[in-house]
Amino acid sequence: MKTDETFAPGLKGVIACETGISLLDTEQEKIIIRGHDLIDLSQGKTYADMVYLLLEGALPDDSERKKLEDKLKAHYDVPENVTEILKMLPEKTHAMDGQRTAISVLAGYDEKIDDRSTSVNKERAYELLGQLPMITVNSYRILHGKAPVKPDPELSYSANFLYMITGEKPTELQADIFDRSLLLYSEHEMPNSTFTSRVIASTNSDMYGALSGAVASLKGNLHGGANEAVMHMLNEADSVSGFEQLMKTKLENKEKIMGFGHRVYMNRMDPRALVMKESLRQLCDLKGDHTLLDMCEAGEEIMKDEKGLYPNLDYYAAPVYWMLGVPIPLYTPIFFSSRTAGLCAHIIEQHDNNRLFRPRVKYTGKELE
Amino acid sequence: MKTDETFAPGLKGVIACETGISLLDTEQEKIIIRGHDLIDLSQGKTYADMVYLLLEGALPDDSERKKLEDKLKAHYDVPENVTEILKMLPEKTHAMDGQRTAISVLAGYDEKIDDRSTSVNKERAYELLGQLPMITVNSYRILHGKAPVKPDPELSYSANFLYMITGEKPTELQADIFDRSLLLYSEHEMPNSTFTSRVIASTNSDMYGALSGAVASLKGNLHGGANEAVMHMLNEADSVSGFEQLMKTKLENKEKIMGFGHRVYMNRMDPRALVMKESLRQLCDLKGDHTLLDMCEAGEEIMKDEKGLYPNLDYYAAPVYWMLGVPIPLYTPIFFSSRTAGLCAHIIEQHDNNRLFRPRVKYTGKELE
Repeated sequence: MKTDETFAPGLKGVIACETGISLLDTEQEKIIIRGHDLIDLSQGKTYADMVYLLLEGALPDDSERKKLEDKLKAHYDVPENVTEILKMLPEKTHAMDGQRTAISVLAGYDEKIDDRSTSVNKERAYELLGQLPMITVNSYRILHGKAPVKPDPELSYSANFLYMITGEKPTELQADIFDRSLLLYSEHEMPNSTFTSRVIASTNSDMYGALSGAVASLKGNLHGGANEAVMHMLNEADSVSGFEQLMKTKLENKEKIMGFGHRVYMNRMDPRALVMKESLRQLCDLKGDHTLLDMCEAGEEIMKDEKGLYPNLDYYAAPVYWMLGVPIPLYTPIFFSSRTAGLCAHIIEQHDNNRLFRPRVKYTGKELE
Repeated sequence: MKTDETFAPGLKGVIACETGISLLDTEQEKIIIRGHDLIDLSQGKTYADMVYLLLEGALPDDSERKKLEDKLKAHYDVPENVTEILKMLPEKTHAMDGQRTAISVLAGYDEKIDDRSTSVNKERAYELLGQLPMITVNSYRILHGKAPVKPDPELSYSANFLYMITGEKPTELQADIFDRSLLLYSEHEMPNSTFTSRVIASTNSDMYGALSGAVASLKGNLHGGANEAVMHMLNEADSVSGFEQLMKTKLENKEKIMGFGHRVYMNRMDPRALVMKESLRQLCDLKGDHTLLDMCEAGEEIMKDEKGLYPNLDYYAAPVYWMLGVPIPLYTPIFFSSRTAGLCAHIIEQHDNNRLFRPRVKYTGKELE
């Protein structure tokens, strides 16, 4: 038996696959996306640029960007039965579960469902990315007793997404900040959801299946669900002193505090968190009320002093979404919607150069009688 | 960077986790399930016994078996909207995709969806196992324009499952053979679908999500989809000489032939295949026509001589299902339905002693500019 080898719980530090898409370079402290620094990209590029970079391998020129945006908008609508099915779900269904069901249903509409070629997979990815704002927002709206909304193709992809969420046309600053959050969430090497989608795709299963698994993975509060948990904590505390007290109580009770630390960054700050913190500052400046920023900074200090842990993206994305008027149950579905760009790039890479994932186990059960 | 380490493509030989549930013991050439030899279990125990063994850790006594069967039957019905939603799927939807959508929808009906305790997880598993015959059969029936059918609680779990599939009360031999196929399919260490479900469960996501991902994984033709592919090949050939010719042509064209070989057994025969081969012989004896068995044996010889590969379970389960009157698009959904017993045991084990799966990558893309 080879099963008495030592193993790394959670595959910590284990190389799961080769990829040309991205790397968390902990030596240079950079998030590399196809040769670009993600933080640099967040300072001048848009989410649409990221989608193109992830799926086509290079940043678009103006004409390519225009074509991509037109393509996404051409796919805004979803089949009527997808909306009807969302209406039939029990009303306490989690928005992530509605999103998962909708993606699962879409498989039946794909005329080329058995085609895994790169070109068909890419078109499939663009179609899904076009459909996701409507799926994401309407999963939430329908499950909360609100009428489904229609997209506005006059707005940019991200501005329309935010408009569908809040019902109000966003200002340029609001749209820019929301777009930046999508860009930052779009790809991050091999987190659990990306790994899930590649593991599924490796059986030669299709993109809808791989994405259904990834939504499920992201729903867990040890992964995507963290941004919602952070906001519930901020709302429960409601003031700087209240937040400090809440955190100290949680630390004393040895409760896990969401929004801090990351398997790969370890004790270093997630550079994406700094970008979102700056966006939070801009929104607070505009409102003339810095309570949320002050609360977050106080929490940051406590966690640094007490645990040596630093915020990750979720910690600052949560209050940013709050100030943009995004309902809390949409935080993780939005994360998933954005991450679909990276996930599809990984699924395509897996299909193009496949090897079935099939690990072994260390058996700790009873021996044969 | 640690990313220039060597790595095993597909995690071949990598220990992914500890488990007390099962082991493919390649030295003893045994499939160990909680201390029992799976092949021994197939010679006297039932699928219901396996469900109990997998979820409770030991084989049931008569009273425990009776309680389990009653519990499964008490959960036979699915919410009406699940059936209604299946009716709204496009008719070309794959039966596996219908099954995945139904499981995804069921999440919304779980009053304790956020509870990951062992006891609640176990009850959830029994409920799902009770519902799966109806979900599985009706996904297929509705998508093929047939009226949904109702279970018959007078029959045993497996006999009812087969009755719902064929519309006819099975003979004792038919019910026994179908039950044996479910038992053999119920658990098999760490194949891709089991790995998928544990990876998803490790974010603290729920059983419905983990199972949605596992259906998607099993759909791929490098995993569960193989049994359907084998039957299509047998039907295409339709005679011993035709099958020999088809296989030789495929080998000359370097096409992958489904139903042979296994990552872990390597060149050894999958012991489960021998059990199903014996069941095929019984069904052929009864019919007085050994064509299918002769075809399979001819194919077995060719693959042994030409490639040194031996049949796996799918190779002999396919013609057995054919002779039991099971429609081909149900082969993989039945495999999934049976495997749900093992999957739920793994999801529970993961939740009970969790560590987030988060591996690394070997980056082969462009370096930072």
